Amino acid sequence: MTIGGLVGRMPRPVTLATMPAEFEHATAVTLIDGTTPLTAAADGATARFAADIASGWGVAGMTNGGYLLAIVTRAMIAASRRRPLTVTAHYLKPAPPGPCTIDVTALRVGRRMATLRAALTVADGTALTVLATLEDPAAAGDHADAEPALTVASPVPPRDQCAARAPFDPAGGEDDPGFVARVALAIRPDDLGFTTGAPTGTPEVQGWFAFPDQAPDDVLDACAVIVATDAFFPPVFNLGGAFAWVPTVELTVHLRATPVAGPLQARFYNTVVSGGLLNEDGELWDSAGNLVAQSRQLALVPRRR
Amino acid sequence: MTIGGLVGRMPRPVTLATMPAEFEHATAVTLIDGTTPLTAAADGATARFAADIASGWGVAGMTNGGYLLAIVTRAMIAASRRRPLTVTAHYLKPAPPGPCTIDVTALRVGRRMATLRAALTVADGTALTVLATLEDPAAAGDHADAEPALTVASPVPPRDQCAARAPFDPAGGEDDPGFVARVALAIRPDDLGFTTGAPTGTPEVQGWFAFPDQAPDDVLDACAVIVATDAFFPPVFNLGGAFAWVPTVELTVHLRATPVAGPLQARFYNTVVSGGLLNEDGELWDSAGNLVAQSRQLALVPRRR
Repeated sequence: MTIGGLVGRMPRPVTLATMPAEFEHATAVTLIDGTTPLTAAADGATARFAADIASGWGVAGMTNGGYLLAIVTRAMIAASRRRPLTVTAHYLKPAPPGPCTIDVTALRVGRRMATLRAALTVADGTALTVLATLEDPAAAGDHADAEPALTVASPVPPRDQCAARAPFDPAGGEDDPGFVARVALAIRPDDLGFTTGAPTGTPEVQGWFAFPDQAPDDVLDACAVIVATDAFFPPVFNLGGAFAWVPTVELTVHLRATPVAGPLQARFYNTVVSGGLLNEDGELWDSAGNLVAQSRQLALVPRRR
Repeated sequence: MTIGGLVGRMPRPVTLATMPAEFEHATAVTLIDGTTPLTAAADGATARFAADIASGWGVAGMTNGGYLLAIVTRAMIAASRRRPLTVTAHYLKPAPPGPCTIDVTALRVGRRMATLRAALTVADGTALTVLATLEDPAAAGDHADAEPALTVASPVPPRDQCAARAPFDPAGGEDDPGFVARVALAIRPDDLGFTTGAPTGTPEVQGWFAFPDQAPDDVLDACAVIVATDAFFPPVFNLGGAFAWVPTVELTVHLRATPVAGPLQARFYNTVVSGGLLNEDGELWDSAGNLVAQSRQLALVPRRR
């Protein structure tokens, strides 16, 4: 039973919303062992899912880390029937396209919060290990009048002022352009300096994220937001230095709101590059400007070959 | 065999450095099962440690979350003989003072990086679950000339311009002042508005962190830095709203450099407070102004009772 399509919609109150079909298919998970949902009585219980890591979701043969985390997150949503609040992945080894299993373990399932552990395993071993806390929105209550409100406004220029092309031009003779063709990015022109050998000196990228087959009414779910946190080119390219792979050690995403329909706005930037490591922070907003996620990853500084 | 004192010093090149004694004692771990170090041949191997959660490291009976994570981190250092780079904890339930066990599992041990899972368990169950990646500094190489450098400068005023008192006055008649007496904080006076019923409106706190028994030559290790990331009052108090407990859901710390001797400088702030949740970001510098850590936690907004 493929339940990715079902549970991917569950956390949203608008149950008629649809997702871009290719992404929904590429992150579908199938329960193969265990029972769901993992409930309060089931601390330590497990659920095992099967999925297929789709081909064409990588760059130079390395499957995109955000896409892999989206698959794991879909399995955790399926296992708990809850909405992810904070998800952390540690990347252990590359995962090639092909079949994988996702093992989800309930560490603690409370009335409002559930903390789960998960691992995505391919033939070669575990590719990433994940900790997440998910929430039952029905148990969270209404906070609208109980707190001071604070947010970060989007600085991203309107989408029609961004460059609707991939920063890595896929027209390089390769048969499969890979990840850049699976997403539809529009980049603030100021941030494309590095593509012409003129890094801006400011390690930042702003732009818009959507899927190529995204319909105007499609609503991106938490899994799609997670892909968006790792979909843009590394802002460190605009600081100069090597133009090479930036391997993620750890990625944490705080999912702060469900997007309204439409593409996402995003800003990514580095603040500390030292000791061979860098942080990459991100903020993501929906098309109406609501902040929907904050992300931070620790990654290796790219090295000249 | 108590090996906390031994391994706490291992990652530092200056092996003669000492730690404040009370903290070192309060985070000592003893190997009780398994073998260490967990090596490349030991993926999936485990090591179990015993420790004592010291009394007096909490506020209102709730043991400080940073202190609990420091104990777990010391066990992970002991298990891998490596230096932590990124540590994420999800908090499942409160942990009272008393004995606990820390189970460390090797998920992947490579030449440079080791990714470990750990859990701290008390009589009532698992209090926190942790994922971390640690590094063998000897295998990391020298990056000094291989990368563009970027950092964040400390805005923290000199220590003698900060208020060397606890924002929660422990002289309230309680027998044990708790956590505030275990650390020596100095707070930027501007940030103490909330203590006199006049929140500044800016959810920020800056100040200095040390231990009361810290000698001038003492060097704070990664475990001490982790305590510092959760030792100050919640900056959201300066945004107004309820003056109550701010329970941490998840805390991630990136440990970016080993401090030089002396106290730490720190800045904490919220950027997004909504939906009953808030982020609290932090930057920590050593006494010479070197950035040593970045932290971010997702926590529940405090509620009026």
